[in-house]
Amino acid sequence: MIRDSFRTYCQEKLMPRILMANRNEVFHQEIVSEMGQLGVLGPTIRGYGCAGTTYVAYGLLAREIERVDSSYRSVMSVQSSLVMHPIHTYGTEQQKQRYLPRLARGELLGCFGLTEPNHGSDPGSMETRARYNPASKTYTLNGSKTWITNAPVADLCVVWAVCEDGKIQGFLLERGMKGLSTPKIEGKFSLRASITGMILMEDVDVPEENLLPNISGLAGPFGCLNNARYGIAWGALGAAEFCLETARQYALDRIQFGVPLARNQLIQKKLADMLTEITIGLQACLQLGRLKDEDKATPEMISMLKRNSCGKALDIARQARDMLGGNGIADEYHVIRHVMNLEAVNTYEGTHDIHALILGRAITGLQAFTVNK
Amino acid sequence: MIRDSFRTYCQEKLMPRILMANRNEVFHQEIVSEMGQLGVLGPTIRGYGCAGTTYVAYGLLAREIERVDSSYRSVMSVQSSLVMHPIHTYGTEQQKQRYLPRLARGELLGCFGLTEPNHGSDPGSMETRARYNPASKTYTLNGSKTWITNAPVADLCVVWAVCEDGKIQGFLLERGMKGLSTPKIEGKFSLRASITGMILMEDVDVPEENLLPNISGLAGPFGCLNNARYGIAWGALGAAEFCLETARQYALDRIQFGVPLARNQLIQKKLADMLTEITIGLQACLQLGRLKDEDKATPEMISMLKRNSCGKALDIARQARDMLGGNGIADEYHVIRHVMNLEAVNTYEGTHDIHALILGRAITGLQAFTVNK
Amino acid sequence: MIRDSFRTYCQEKLMPRILMANRNEVFHQEIVSEMGQLGVLGPTIRGYGCAGTTYVAYGLLAREIERVDSSYRSVMSVQSSLVMHPIHTYGTEQQKQRYLPRLARGELLGCFGLTEPNHGSDPGSMETRARYNPASKTYTLNGSKTWITNAPVADLCVVWAVCEDGKIQGFLLERGMKGLSTPKIEGKFSLRASITGMILMEDVDVPEENLLPNISGLAGPFGCLNNARYGIAWGALGAAEFCLETARQYALDRIQFGVPLARNQLIQKKLADMLTEITIGLQACLQLGRLKDEDKATPEMISMLKRNSCGKALDIARQARDMLGGNGIADEYHVIRHVMNLEAVNTYEGTHDIHALILGRAITGLQAFTVNK
Amino acid sequence: MIRDSFRTYCQEKLMPRILMANRNEVFHQEIVSEMGQLGVLGPTIRGYGCAGTTYVAYGLLAREIERVDSSYRSVMSVQSSLVMHPIHTYGTEQQKQRYLPRLARGELLGCFGLTEPNHGSDPGSMETRARYNPASKTYTLNGSKTWITNAPVADLCVVWAVCEDGKIQGFLLERGMKGLSTPKIEGKFSLRASITGMILMEDVDVPEENLLPNISGLAGPFGCLNNARYGIAWGALGAAEFCLETARQYALDRIQFGVPLARNQLIQKKLADMLTEITIGLQACLQLGRLKDEDKATPEMISMLKRNSCGKALDIARQARDMLGGNGIADEYHVIRHVMNLEAVNTYEGTHDIHALILGRAITGLQAFTVNK
Repeated sequence: MIRDSFRTYCQEKLMPRILMANRNEVFHQEIVSEMGQLGVLGPTIRGYGCAGTTYVAYGLLAREIERVDSSYRSVMSVQSSLVMHPIHTYGTEQQKQRYLPRLARGELLGCFGLTEPNHGSDPGSMETRARYNPASKTYTLNGSKTWITNAPVADLCVVWAVCEDGKIQGFLLERGMKGLSTPKIEGKFSLRASITGMILMEDVDVPEENLLPNISGLAGPFGCLNNARYGIAWGALGAAEFCLETARQYALDRIQFGVPLARNQLIQKKLADMLTEITIGLQACLQLGRLKDEDKATPEMISMLKRNSCGKALDIARQARDMLGGNGIADEYHVIRHVMNLEAVNTYEGTHDIHALILGRAITGLQAFTVNK
Repeated sequence: MIRDSFRTYCQEKLMPRILMANRNEVFHQEIVSEMGQLGVLGPTIRGYGCAGTTYVAYGLLAREIERVDSSYRSVMSVQSSLVMHPIHTYGTEQQKQRYLPRLARGELLGCFGLTEPNHGSDPGSMETRARYNPASKTYTLNGSKTWITNAPVADLCVVWAVCEDGKIQGFLLERGMKGLSTPKIEGKFSLRASITGMILMEDVDVPEENLLPNISGLAGPFGCLNNARYGIAWGALGAAEFCLETARQYALDRIQFGVPLARNQLIQKKLADMLTEITIGLQACLQLGRLKDEDKATPEMISMLKRNSCGKALDIARQARDMLGGNGIADEYHVIRHVMNLEAVNTYEGTHDIHALILGRAITGLQAFTVNK
Repeated sequence: MIRDSFRTYCQEKLMPRILMANRNEVFHQEIVSEMGQLGVLGPTIRGYGCAGTTYVAYGLLAREIERVDSSYRSVMSVQSSLVMHPIHTYGTEQQKQRYLPRLARGELLGCFGLTEPNHGSDPGSMETRARYNPASKTYTLNGSKTWITNAPVADLCVVWAVCEDGKIQGFLLERGMKGLSTPKIEGKFSLRASITGMILMEDVDVPEENLLPNISGLAGPFGCLNNARYGIAWGALGAAEFCLETARQYALDRIQFGVPLARNQLIQKKLADMLTEITIGLQACLQLGRLKDEDKATPEMISMLKRNSCGKALDIARQARDMLGGNGIADEYHVIRHVMNLEAVNTYEGTHDIHALILGRAITGLQAFTVNK
Repeated sequence: MIRDSFRTYCQEKLMPRILMANRNEVFHQEIVSEMGQLGVLGPTIRGYGCAGTTYVAYGLLAREIERVDSSYRSVMSVQSSLVMHPIHTYGTEQQKQRYLPRLARGELLGCFGLTEPNHGSDPGSMETRARYNPASKTYTLNGSKTWITNAPVADLCVVWAVCEDGKIQGFLLERGMKGLSTPKIEGKFSLRASITGMILMEDVDVPEENLLPNISGLAGPFGCLNNARYGIAWGALGAAEFCLETARQYALDRIQFGVPLARNQLIQKKLADMLTEITIGLQACLQLGRLKDEDKATPEMISMLKRNSCGKALDIARQARDMLGGNGIADEYHVIRHVMNLEAVNTYEGTHDIHALILGRAITGLQAFTVNK
């Protein structure tokens, strides 16, 4: 089973690298091709060199890798859900043939440019513009994107821009295009084992065959995010499981006042709360995966579990850190790394509050995002 | 489907009675025979006039009735899990023949005597004593039980007592036995539509054929409680669903500052939280029911979901009451009734904290109930 | 000191009456004259037969009486802050002379009519109308008010209505005026020892000398509410203190698993949390009282502490109830009564959320009550 | 006023250095002498070159410096409360003359060795041993201490060890003593702008005049911790104030969906909660400071506020980070630094749970730290 071999890889190959990668803010890019060899990039796609697994299996993979680090899961999510998925779903046959096999093997690394410096939760106000030039049959893109995972080292950028007709379209930008730069963001204290940057576009000319033709409007990026959020819902609970297991073992090993920490009621209550939330959260993810495999999952279901898993995982990681006492601030125990990572995971691809309002709208039929009636 | 006809009964027959029953602290005893006619008493038992449903179906029934009121679900739980279940599981064939059909039809009402005035969470310290008299082939019971649902009107009491060998045994006491009295507890502000009382035993002589022979020790009552807790895990979420739906409708109908309350972010966040917890909680109950039907459910799984459902349902009911503002304290809106009920439901059959320690012990292998190592 | 004699009264005279008053939903009206004799009605007013205490002293009185029951404190608050305060602050000398001494002695009982059936948190949308009749020099009032403490038995109603110029004005209505009725609201599960009702006005003619002349607009009722909320901030913590003390004593007395409940870490943590919040909350109330005595307290300060005290007291009462286990639902232990009462106290005179938005506006300069920018 | 000049120093001299100090895990040791010049080291001590301020003033200083970074406040706390305080309170006149003036000027930096690798919350199980040698009139110390702020660069270590009579005593160890080493702990993700390490002692010979004679037993280190915790109670709220102010400004500046983030109810509620907790927490600290200046503060009062301030400040910092969205993980916004710092601050000098049990013992008279009755 793909899950088991991937778990072995995660524990034996990734776990030993993560401590220093996180401490020194280093992205080990060779991981991408390793994941490619294991068949976990774009795994739910059929054909084009992809594994064609179920969504349940995809979820299990996300859980295994995030058990090690959310950075690595983020890299996998971006490549699979935010780069390969839109090419596969919205792209031409030529685009699929050209990019998907190399993305699946990890020869190419992709990134996803949606968020802009002034527009986090509100992509509808996008400022990046694409202007069509009939003469050269190219689009000229101008604008900037920020907080883009992989951007500084990505070979391929899926960038969303507003065209002259006011519609949002997706474009495939390749590294080396004139006017394209991807500076790194320094001083992150979350997801330090991945690299994050900006996508700056000054008159970047993109051939028209690099436009994703089969989608327009926010439905394009939202479809991608939806896909990615599904993976996050599983992944965040993987991180939580690691924190629970670590805290449990620490509490069993550490003797205070003559008994293991784990003998204390205050500790046991925390462990019970953690295990309960993980258990019911995973159960819900499993059901969602099955619905997704039957093509019955709605975006609201995914919002619900992305929000639930991330919020709960962050709480669990914080509780675990607390249980480790002073040692809990040392990266060797790994838990504070998850605390820091999950701050980003709880925020990106829809914050906890934004998903509350998405759910609220579904429940009430009334939007409460804006001040308009 | 049994669920649908029972839902109709609950909404059409119970819902109209509950307001005044709760306001005036009245138990409508005829409900027992109505439930008997619908086949929902002891529904998972096969034979003896019982319906022989799955445990999933039993859970769905509990959810429907507690959507109306926890008192009614308590009556059903006591009869099914705490009276019929032990007779069926621990009793003689003669006991089964004698009691089960009439209990199933609701001709007899039962109660379950475990908790004592000085021993709530700690039944191991039971004080009620049973002394065997070889001459009369009877056991003489002395002791008192309290907070016993149905006691003042029950025809049959399943009573747990310590025998001379120190072992706990179960006995079937019938109303009218000499020395048996069942005074009512006044001034309850929870589960007011059911009747609660004590079982006082002064030299009650019980024929030896009324002993449940096939169990001894705490495993007897714990097996019953386990069964009942499974139903509570489903039922409490039914109450929570009612509260969510009521709060949602109220927030849609009530206009403040020119828009429905439901248009407010603070309201939508609460609704989103409520719906999320109900959804993932029910998903977990469903999985537990399936495991129970395959005989794979452990007591710890049941502890987890009894605790989770009750704690979350109580929170949800409180949030709903808050959303109803001043009207939320009026019984006509039904929500404050659920708030009050769920206080008891969260407490009985293992408090939130006791179940935390049960789970903690399962997680760590260390007990933290007592001060002993 | 007035606090000590009042504490004695509360414990010796009110405490023995509250159990049955709450159980049977009875308001012992003679309490009003007893409070009058003790000088605690309108205590901060100087002259007119009032005690002229500091606001710190007023806070201490509220805390003592709410330690017994929030209903009694509500009656005191309504009389003092919502009836005597507006007459004293906004009334004519003649009105003061006529009403204040008798209100202070408890010969007259007052009520305060602001909230309307469709307008709880949003009094600006008031529908009650006052039309001036130059011929008779009277105002004709039409409209209805609801959730009015004391209304069914009050002798005097301070009613707020919109005049023909669109301004809100206060009127003094006396029982017996034609067209005035005050039906009781049944089925309250909160503040059951006080009486609550509606004020229905059909063409009630009120002499113009019964208009409070020195205020117009929402500043009138808001000034009164501000005054009352100050008392609530103190009072709610008195109820919390009672719950803490009861839970503490119960946990010391009750033996489970061979030790007092109070020996358990889970119990001690709750007690520590409760004591901490009460201590820092009272400290803040004391400082607010001193500022109020120096006339430096702002409405936002009062909002902050009304909200903090009520929200925290409700949490504390719920924790205490939980600590009492099954006994916690019996009214004899008094804690569930406080749980129910504090639901209303947390809601009335500005819900927890409304005060959050009042504070939010003060912090940000931006209103978020309505959908208007 | 000393507070104002120190605030200027903190904002103008420390704030510009903290970003890179934290990012690169660097302790700018020159800060110690700068603080010495400002008179804020051991400020409450009278004489010996110290400022002789009130405890209220000391609290205000802690709040100002922790507004910048908890690392710097930790350095100040260690020097003042854990090094200078025990020398002043438990030391000989000769020790005071020798060390206090240079410590006050920041010429010497001290550290405090109590916590051992296997004993965090439980110093009573201390393993470090001191053996008296009558011949040389020295004590030979063996053992190890860990998580010691300043240790790798400290000139003076106050070390607690168990003597042959089983009593705990304090010793003054100077850098350079044979057998003493102070390795740095790497990979901290909290308090990165201070340096933390171990104190390893292998047959360190300490002259008997370096023993602190006027105390023995745990009362020695506990007296120091008590003093330090008082400062932490103030300091943590200073960090919280910074987070609130940053989140508020960010929410006002950032436009989403056409309005400032601060216009959203969900944001305003968080700001209201934050401001409330800071306000009532500071009010309680002020009262505690006044009691301390009157020598009326008990250790339990300090436990309560250390616990309350730290727990609440950590919550506030987390909320603030969340409000900053994606930018919240960048160190440039400073808030994630406070989140990480406050994890340690909430843990050290008594974790949140340990202080709960200290308070629980005070409330109930029963200890719940150990499994012994």
